[in-house]
Amino acid sequence: MNTQQYMEQLETLDIRMSSLTYTSALMGWDSMTLASKKGVDARSSVIGNMSELFFTSLINDEVKEMLDYLTEHKSELDETIAAKVRLYLKDYNEIMKIPKDEYAAYQALISKSNLAWEEAREKNDFSIFAPYLDQVLKAKKKFVKYRGYEGHPYNTLLDDYEDGLTVEAADEFFSNLKAKIVPLVKRIQAKEAPKNAFLDLTYDISKQKEYSKYMMEVLNFRMDCGCLAESAHPFTMNLSREDVRITTKFYEKDLLSSISSTIHETGHALYEQNISPDFGVSILTSGTSMGIHESQSRLYENNFGRSLPFWHKHYGRLQDLYPEQLGNISVEDFQKSLNTVKPSLIRIDADEVTYPLHVMVRYEMEKMIMSDDVNVDELPRLWNDKYEEYLGVRPETDSDGILQDVHWSEGLFGYFPSYALGSAYASQFEFYMRKDIDVDALLASGDMAPILKWLSEKIHVYGSSKIPSEIIEGATGEKFNPKYFVDYLETKYSAIYDL
Amino acid sequence: MNTQQYMEQLETLDIRMSSLTYTSALMGWDSMTLASKKGVDARSSVIGNMSELFFTSLINDEVKEMLDYLTEHKSELDETIAAKVRLYLKDYNEIMKIPKDEYAAYQALISKSNLAWEEAREKNDFSIFAPYLDQVLKAKKKFVKYRGYEGHPYNTLLDDYEDGLTVEAADEFFSNLKAKIVPLVKRIQAKEAPKNAFLDLTYDISKQKEYSKYMMEVLNFRMDCGCLAESAHPFTMNLSREDVRITTKFYEKDLLSSISSTIHETGHALYEQNISPDFGVSILTSGTSMGIHESQSRLYENNFGRSLPFWHKHYGRLQDLYPEQLGNISVEDFQKSLNTVKPSLIRIDADEVTYPLHVMVRYEMEKMIMSDDVNVDELPRLWNDKYEEYLGVRPETDSDGILQDVHWSEGLFGYFPSYALGSAYASQFEFYMRKDIDVDALLASGDMAPILKWLSEKIHVYGSSKIPSEIIEGATGEKFNPKYFVDYLETKYSAIYDL
Repeated sequence: MNTQQYMEQLETLDIRMSSLTYTSALMGWDSMTLASKKGVDARSSVIGNMSELFFTSLINDEVKEMLDYLTEHKSELDETIAAKVRLYLKDYNEIMKIPKDEYAAYQALISKSNLAWEEAREKNDFSIFAPYLDQVLKAKKKFVKYRGYEGHPYNTLLDDYEDGLTVEAADEFFSNLKAKIVPLVKRIQAKEAPKNAFLDLTYDISKQKEYSKYMMEVLNFRMDCGCLAESAHPFTMNLSREDVRITTKFYEKDLLSSISSTIHETGHALYEQNISPDFGVSILTSGTSMGIHESQSRLYENNFGRSLPFWHKHYGRLQDLYPEQLGNISVEDFQKSLNTVKPSLIRIDADEVTYPLHVMVRYEMEKMIMSDDVNVDELPRLWNDKYEEYLGVRPETDSDGILQDVHWSEGLFGYFPSYALGSAYASQFEFYMRKDIDVDALLASGDMAPILKWLSEKIHVYGSSKIPSEIIEGATGEKFNPKYFVDYLETKYSAIYDL
Repeated sequence: MNTQQYMEQLETLDIRMSSLTYTSALMGWDSMTLASKKGVDARSSVIGNMSELFFTSLINDEVKEMLDYLTEHKSELDETIAAKVRLYLKDYNEIMKIPKDEYAAYQALISKSNLAWEEAREKNDFSIFAPYLDQVLKAKKKFVKYRGYEGHPYNTLLDDYEDGLTVEAADEFFSNLKAKIVPLVKRIQAKEAPKNAFLDLTYDISKQKEYSKYMMEVLNFRMDCGCLAESAHPFTMNLSREDVRITTKFYEKDLLSSISSTIHETGHALYEQNISPDFGVSILTSGTSMGIHESQSRLYENNFGRSLPFWHKHYGRLQDLYPEQLGNISVEDFQKSLNTVKPSLIRIDADEVTYPLHVMVRYEMEKMIMSDDVNVDELPRLWNDKYEEYLGVRPETDSDGILQDVHWSEGLFGYFPSYALGSAYASQFEFYMRKDIDVDALLASGDMAPILKWLSEKIHVYGSSKIPSEIIEGATGEKFNPKYFVDYLETKYSAIYDL
């Protein structure tokens, strides 16, 4: 076999694996949006069987030989092919160490665990979810042992979502943030809180839906290449760059929730919709890491979607939908209430200043879990204690506490830190974007296209073909630097709160 | 290897194949309801790749050896295992004769063809669909050649949907029906048509949705094991017996369309929801043939859902939803207009007397296509000519003519006759059901459970484990006999039209 033939073999593998990923993504989408709860047994059995197929398609001697050969002959490969080799080799090394049966059983478990979480959250009963979480954690820990780790066992999971991230680096990142954010929160809290009485009013849900679709459109979501649906926890699912779907959840008594989650998920979706079409059905047609993905969603949600120029353009439309509720509220007061800083219980509704503290709670708990410092039964209390310590608030129910996030039910450990990294990346991107284009003028005019163009050309188009550090350095000319985030928070909130 | 080991191999195959069928059904559901049209290329590529997997999982020497061994040792197998062997052997023999690449290309073609049909129908432009239909037909004909046939090449396709059906038998069936139905239609047309002016009024769609869900509930559709969605052409999709989905289409100016299609699809869904749970994720967890499936949908839609006792119970609810439109219309007049006999253009909206003539048009055209007696370009005209001949009406547009049905775009040739067979089976089932239970009293009381129990015990529970003739003989004690259908039409319409 020569390089050409091995490259063809890689293409065949790429389409097979990406097809299996597509069906698995679709089953995930379906099970979170439409599928009957009672169908879980059949669905889990199918998911288990399909991941066995995923496993056997990747983990075999022919694939290993091909990947090894192409790795050795890397100099002969173009960038796209080299990126595919790198990614499949990473997957191969990750999975090959896990016994096939255990891998398939784990996939089936996740599907049931997710359903148990949903029920537990609905009924505010952690005990429904606990046995599943326990099994998921046992499997995760076992997998980390199979896969191996350097330093802390949590490192292996952190690296899954952000190439090269370690406990050491994350500890430093979070302790820096904490040192800056906690005093900032205190200075803000010393000031008068924005007058938010209008937020307690009732906001008709069908109008919220209309406004969510309007938001997607003005942010350049290609409406003929995706859709909006509803689910318990908002998420984005990319089937292909021409079929990227987002969900949100509507609350009659919480207008801002659907607006901000729609903008957030649209940020994710724009990334997926603007990956190079040249990649086709491929492992490259997907965002490169959770951190970079979150940088896109948070840039839209916070840096743009909570800014005054943005709302100068779009607030009128919202007032037209809700004249009774918003007719007498000025755009400045509306924007101020969008940026209300107030320590609270629910991560996805948190303001962007206290948000990293929510993430830190989860980060520290995951770290403890992975080093066997805590049992599943103790988690709700630990959660509540940490909220009290960092945020000064204590959940009264588990639904408002440990049951609020979907991630653990899906085995997504190591994922949360990427939310905070995403905010930090976003501010670095924005800083450099402002050197090239007049962001405020564009936000105020409603012309979001040049902003999307900047992001697409520097970030989106590459899909997974570059690693996060390459993306950051390529787009900004320097390494990741969290100071842009802290500066951004300082500047923005000094203005809003007149600090 | 001994029988036990081969049986285990069969179980492994059954779960694998059924898992692939599940994902393919889900992709089908998704592409007809939610998926973006622009995502078709990626989706087709995935579908093609997944059917290659379907192909290679079934067509290999190990499977062949296992199926041959178990066929030889049939006497040692229980009924369930024997049924699986029979079904997989049928699939194996069908598919093994088609080259793998052509099979995968065909699956990908179907996905594009379906989209082209949708666009063609929307734009009333057959030329958009024609090149795809041409390719589908070429592939179908080629496949029939690969697979072989006895007598007429169409026989192979008829047998796909109804075990043992031949052109000879279908010709006889249809010519008998035609001989009885054409005079019956004439006698009815000599009478005064029901006064239908209220059907031209506008019926709010959200209330139609509400009534569709009410219908599903009163017919014992398990609402926690499925859902209702919308699509261009109503259909039922079974993922598992706990996840059976139906679609309908709502028209503001056509109240009866959504009611009758919802009842029709619910009939299909009840079949799937009541298959024995013992089969699990298996090839047996699916209705046994299109004809038997259609017997269930038509029994509910026509025999029950257009009867006076049924509407005595459920008409009040409909009047409550539409007091302005229906307040002054009596239940007798409503039921009469539900049974208006009038030759028309659209099959799915046709009355049950002229319906078999719609099917006959398609049957005869498919027969001609399969014997190379007509080209794709000539089909619209041929369609229109036949409608004029049998029904006395001529479509003015292709959307109201040859583009009305989804089937050909999905390669479903040989499927249509099962619609007419289904009506005939339904009347035979009803005749014998009435010997056991007081159907009219149950319809009038709204207690549909004993009816469903009768059908479930005699038909549904078996899934695909029995062939159609076994089902019919088991449930009615005699072979299929179309006279029950003709008698049913005579009796029913003599009463309604006072013949």
